[in-house]
Amino acid sequence: MNVKIVIAPDSFKGSLSAAEVCAAVEAGALRAVPGAEVVRVPMADGGEGTLDCFVAARGGDLVEVAATDPVGRPVKAAYALSGDGRSAVVELAAASGLPLVEDVPADPMGAGTAGTGDLIADAVRRGARDVLVCIGGSASTDGGTGLLRALGVRFLDADGAELPPGGAALARLDAVDDSGVPAAVRDVRFRVACDVTNPLVGPEGAAAVFGPQKGADPAQVRELDAALTRFADVVAGRFGVRVHDLPGAGAAGGTCGGLVGVLGAEPSGGARLVAEAVGLDGALDGADLVITGEGRVDGQSAGGKVVSAVAALARDRAIPAVALAGGVTGPLDELHGLGLTAAFSIADGPRTLDALKAEAAPLLTALAEQAVRLAAR
Amino acid sequence: MNVKIVIAPDSFKGSLSAAEVCAAVEAGALRAVPGAEVVRVPMADGGEGTLDCFVAARGGDLVEVAATDPVGRPVKAAYALSGDGRSAVVELAAASGLPLVEDVPADPMGAGTAGTGDLIADAVRRGARDVLVCIGGSASTDGGTGLLRALGVRFLDADGAELPPGGAALARLDAVDDSGVPAAVRDVRFRVACDVTNPLVGPEGAAAVFGPQKGADPAQVRELDAALTRFADVVAGRFGVRVHDLPGAGAAGGTCGGLVGVLGAEPSGGARLVAEAVGLDGALDGADLVITGEGRVDGQSAGGKVVSAVAALARDRAIPAVALAGGVTGPLDELHGLGLTAAFSIADGPRTLDALKAEAAPLLTALAEQAVRLAAR
Repeated sequence: MNVKIVIAPDSFKGSLSAAEVCAAVEAGALRAVPGAEVVRVPMADGGEGTLDCFVAARGGDLVEVAATDPVGRPVKAAYALSGDGRSAVVELAAASGLPLVEDVPADPMGAGTAGTGDLIADAVRRGARDVLVCIGGSASTDGGTGLLRALGVRFLDADGAELPPGGAALARLDAVDDSGVPAAVRDVRFRVACDVTNPLVGPEGAAAVFGPQKGADPAQVRELDAALTRFADVVAGRFGVRVHDLPGAGAAGGTCGGLVGVLGAEPSGGARLVAEAVGLDGALDGADLVITGEGRVDGQSAGGKVVSAVAALARDRAIPAVALAGGVTGPLDELHGLGLTAAFSIADGPRTLDALKAEAAPLLTALAEQAVRLAAR
Repeated sequence: MNVKIVIAPDSFKGSLSAAEVCAAVEAGALRAVPGAEVVRVPMADGGEGTLDCFVAARGGDLVEVAATDPVGRPVKAAYALSGDGRSAVVELAAASGLPLVEDVPADPMGAGTAGTGDLIADAVRRGARDVLVCIGGSASTDGGTGLLRALGVRFLDADGAELPPGGAALARLDAVDDSGVPAAVRDVRFRVACDVTNPLVGPEGAAAVFGPQKGADPAQVRELDAALTRFADVVAGRFGVRVHDLPGAGAAGGTCGGLVGVLGAEPSGGARLVAEAVGLDGALDGADLVITGEGRVDGQSAGGKVVSAVAALARDRAIPAVALAGGVTGPLDELHGLGLTAAFSIADGPRTLDALKAEAAPLLTALAEQAVRLAAR
């Protein structure tokens, strides 16, 4: 019997990387079915570990670039470029993350996303035409204008002068000029990994919900919300795309909205986009079983996570999908509906959290053996 | 799809009875496969809970009898008689157990098993021709002679006088006279559930190993061992069955040896005999899956337990067998070799032992749903 097993887990945060999870699960799978064909596809959800997974799957390497931090200072930041140079994954947090500016007073009105644009521009220069931007953790509320400016877009006031960086200035936005965007950038297929559903503006928007954690007081929140509304109005007039209420547009201070409105980026859940970027769908060709997992499988938060993305792909191909996790919190009906066959915890009896973490790898191996024995019989 | 699932677990000691385990597992199984045919066969290993399982499976009821305790006092004790009156299960501990004589000074030399014989005699009078004797926990080292005497066997000294009760008197045994055993008793098929492998005599025998916990000092141990040797010699001469070194013959102070030697009883593992008594084999007809379980599945002690007995029966019919347990301690290679497909712990993440016990039923339901989803897809 030739059995093909694909292992596509998220990391167990605080315990094992996705690659370590793959190794532990593979050991158990091979105990259950010696000689099985095992394909390891370490996964991520667009957050921590995403670049590593991409490089593991697509070859290539991390590229470090001199970029600009949220308040305009130089910063070194890395993105991942595939071995063939055609695809890149850029994490917004690398050059535009809030932790980068913890050493200076918060600047919610002026902070921007230029550094992420620097990384993307570098990737495009090197040939990338498929760019996945993983957003979240930003220091800014600039609608992604800093990023867009680094790619050649100009944001002008009524006098035709370029606006300064930051979200507040967008209140004076009169026109968006993309005539200077290089053809290479126009050729790029942009995808945005975004796991929040906040619209760009309004009481659930980028300024109202995320502004305060970036240092905005209530008056500043109102000012930023008005500025983003102005931004969205102008973008709608210029590009015919209305992002005011688009679910997810408010992610990363409106960066998602800006990428969608100006560059036609396609927003989607992080895990689903990472699955695409690492070629999981192809890896599933002819598979008899896929094993996924994460630190905690929680029926209440089924969407957007690695387990649900893997389960959905497996369901499309009628492949059973089993999740192995540190903890499993039911009910799992939603995950089952998405395509997950079953989920099991690595806990083998009474254990403390620390003990579970310390023994996670051997427990995963033991559990994987049992699950594969049952699935592959 | 018509799916038949047999649920045949041991109790989770200190937490759920076997019947409660069945109910919890059934709830999960029916969530996984609504409309499945579920057959509940609560199991036991010949110890606690065995009578209840037998009555649940075979109808009938517990029968309370006036019997004799290990030191000759009257005691009320119960055994289980099947609904058709043809089969009985007798636990030696009911009338001949060590706890019954905790209120008097230990009498390792004189204590006996007469009470268990009283129960068997009553069952035979009521029509039982298939008697399962579950031994263990005895107060005596009499080779089962008290039991046998209650069924009509006489133990004589060189003068043809009946020996007094107890193991010590067997040193003077000259002849065993079974001419007075009623025909009904001769018709009975006796089986002995016994999960130790100690021989009747010698350094690993009934006196040496179990005598001290019944109050025998070293000199008494030597005396009892010699007496049992004499007993075995006479039995061998009279019945042609040598039980001196028979594995298990030393169980319950040699009761197993006596039953085998004098009555031709068949010794076997408790769980296996209970499986027979409750008709598990028949219940497995046409089953697609059997779910077993116990408080702790331990690869190191695979033999003789409910999980291994159920797995072996399932293997004979090529039915996948899954064990659900409070705790699972690997490696499970031996259990897999016996026929167990897979074992899973009900733990769903970090939990204390108390929390696991308190939540055992809902955790079992949740786990059973997952396991059946994977097995029955």
